[in-house]
Amino acid sequence: MSLFLRNNALQKLCETHLSSLSREEELPESLLRAALEQGSMVLLGNPAHPRLEPIVVGQPARVKINANIGNSAMRNSLPCELRKLETALAAGTDTIMDLSTAGNLTAIRRAMLDACPSPLGTVPLYAVAQKYIDAGKDPALFDPRELLDEVAAQAEQGVDFMTLHCGITERAARWATEEKGRVMGIVSRGGAILARWMRTRRRENPLLEHYDELIGIARRYNVTFSLGDALRPGAGADAGDAAQIEEVIVLGRLARQAFNEGVQCMIEGPGHVPMHEVAGQIQGIKKLTRGAPLYVLGPLVVDSCPGYDHLAGAIGGAIGVQAGVDFLCYLTPAEHLTLPDAQDVKAGVMASRIAAQAGEIALGRPRALRREAAMAGARKNLDWTGMKCAALDPNMMDDRRGEHAGEEVCAMCGDFCAVKMARP
Amino acid sequence: MSLFLRNNALQKLCETHLSSLSREEELPESLLRAALEQGSMVLLGNPAHPRLEPIVVGQPARVKINANIGNSAMRNSLPCELRKLETALAAGTDTIMDLSTAGNLTAIRRAMLDACPSPLGTVPLYAVAQKYIDAGKDPALFDPRELLDEVAAQAEQGVDFMTLHCGITERAARWATEEKGRVMGIVSRGGAILARWMRTRRRENPLLEHYDELIGIARRYNVTFSLGDALRPGAGADAGDAAQIEEVIVLGRLARQAFNEGVQCMIEGPGHVPMHEVAGQIQGIKKLTRGAPLYVLGPLVVDSCPGYDHLAGAIGGAIGVQAGVDFLCYLTPAEHLTLPDAQDVKAGVMASRIAAQAGEIALGRPRALRREAAMAGARKNLDWTGMKCAALDPNMMDDRRGEHAGEEVCAMCGDFCAVKMARP
Repeated sequence: MSLFLRNNALQKLCETHLSSLSREEELPESLLRAALEQGSMVLLGNPAHPRLEPIVVGQPARVKINANIGNSAMRNSLPCELRKLETALAAGTDTIMDLSTAGNLTAIRRAMLDACPSPLGTVPLYAVAQKYIDAGKDPALFDPRELLDEVAAQAEQGVDFMTLHCGITERAARWATEEKGRVMGIVSRGGAILARWMRTRRRENPLLEHYDELIGIARRYNVTFSLGDALRPGAGADAGDAAQIEEVIVLGRLARQAFNEGVQCMIEGPGHVPMHEVAGQIQGIKKLTRGAPLYVLGPLVVDSCPGYDHLAGAIGGAIGVQAGVDFLCYLTPAEHLTLPDAQDVKAGVMASRIAAQAGEIALGRPRALRREAAMAGARKNLDWTGMKCAALDPNMMDDRRGEHAGEEVCAMCGDFCAVKMARP
Repeated sequence: MSLFLRNNALQKLCETHLSSLSREEELPESLLRAALEQGSMVLLGNPAHPRLEPIVVGQPARVKINANIGNSAMRNSLPCELRKLETALAAGTDTIMDLSTAGNLTAIRRAMLDACPSPLGTVPLYAVAQKYIDAGKDPALFDPRELLDEVAAQAEQGVDFMTLHCGITERAARWATEEKGRVMGIVSRGGAILARWMRTRRRENPLLEHYDELIGIARRYNVTFSLGDALRPGAGADAGDAAQIEEVIVLGRLARQAFNEGVQCMIEGPGHVPMHEVAGQIQGIKKLTRGAPLYVLGPLVVDSCPGYDHLAGAIGGAIGVQAGVDFLCYLTPAEHLTLPDAQDVKAGVMASRIAAQAGEIALGRPRALRREAAMAGARKNLDWTGMKCAALDPNMMDDRRGEHAGEEVCAMCGDFCAVKMARP
């Protein structure tokens, strides 16, 4: 039975949006349909999200960028988060994730959904855990029923995709935390809570047990599962270990199950990975998850550059895109140090867009090559207007040229300009 | 005959510095000697450079970073350039190149040599061309004798390495500028001037004709030739074309000749190169130049991100280091737009250091792996002092953590911290 028959919400979205998505992606509708039908592409969009503009994620669509925003107990200001949301959208992000963990999360999410026409994602477990942490209790005391209720409430509210850490098993969590195992153990917040939950109760991951119920909720609203990598490596040295791979195998099976029951799925990927292992990781994950859209955090190819993680992430992201990554979650200069501010958000989005552009050039994607050709052609003619049209960040150009914007040459060389001197 | 017998200045430098270089590089003296002897490593150091601390460049030494500074006719302030020099050294650059093209270049160079214990490089042709440009004349009118005098004067002054565009031939220059040839033509300033010179006179590159004289001057002061890539691609679309490869072949032959006559040589490399072509370029250049140390500008894997070229360069640089690059010339956020300021200089040096670290991790270099292990170990323990010790930019950490520096958790998660929650 066709996916579109299994998922009515998706079918309706396609009726409304597929032709415009086809134009945007420069791909025929029939190709988008076929890719959605085989699960190598997802259409992110919950009909309950007001003024939503859905997008598709997955080969061979344009690589998409996500920006994580949201408060913490130590930096909690809704106006500030909404400014970050606007900044991320203006910088060219394709989606937003609200990772808020403090204050009235329902109200924050409402405000973000209303302000964001792009798909919005969340990690529902955060809302459940927050109640326990705020009360000074162990978040691992949560009852699975609370999580199911939260997922249902957020789906109804209009959330388009949700990170669910369904794939972390009791034994993989044990492997990740055992003595002489990993250097960094578990660095996913959802993963850490679930590992505690399983260890305390000596029971299997409750999301596994309630997976059918999650599928039922998600299908109703076309919420796309972003199957979370609770055991993603938190240090390059931990990349590709048994705990990580066990989780990927489980995620692949869960994705297939959800898909067969009408729910679209993406797979979340690492994380800290040395650059010579990035392509292997991507290929391995794609294989084990049968080509489901892959959504990575980085990958971050250097552990030791806090303050510059957007840059280390762009290196891994570019290599990842060349190897088949579909969706890049940004890293900002604030990663590992503090909550990002608006400037960090812009830096993170731009770094991810550059990584995507580098990877898409390598893949020979026509749109990426057209942009490069337009820039080179304009440069050859010292045509600054043309360069601005081709630039990933047009505003940056006038800002940097300052008083010399409008002149033929730039302040780096003045008339000592190779392009001028090379003219006949 | 041993290189050390052919080059007395080098022999003396080795007597004084090889043991400390051996400790710094964590490589035995015998290995350094053997690498220098076969030309796969160079020791940068002119005995006339006051308070010089020489370095080695080449496999398997630590990858080095160069920062280009220097004024232009549109931004000409010596105090500003000296501030950039200090900033670059503080950020961890290994060498400086003075690319000034305005004002009293001899005095500027003197001030930089005095302020810079690290090796300093120049492009002597700039000083020759400047006189013509300042006088409103075509720089291609220069007489080769002027260039030889300039090289001799700068060698005497203490310059440690010099870019000389000896490898651009008449026919390769023609290929690079012919109709329906390259998108961007020639983007090297030295290359553009030499191409004009050859075209006007219908004669071969004058540096080729006077190569023996250049060798004689360089040997006396152990000036290392940085054999310039006058035909480096200025757009990804131009990478690896016949003009570029012809020049590389000539550079390889010239490097061998100079080396046989006692002059150390590095080869300069691209430039704009799409990421899937970077490794191939590096391997090809290394082969055609018999493993001479390779000094690249980027490579820049995206044309269309002015304002972020340090980032696009870090992607190519990381891949390049993994493929065998020895020396990274930084790109700053100002590239293609304006003269870099001190903040750009720091951003450029850090981006190159991160690229080098990423590549050296991939190569399994022990020092790079130790840094990563130290960072991961400190993170696991939320040991912020340990993280600071391991960080490529320690100052960035306190700056970003701000009021929360000194606390156990960071403002990103507060107590909603995976590392804390994952503890038993």
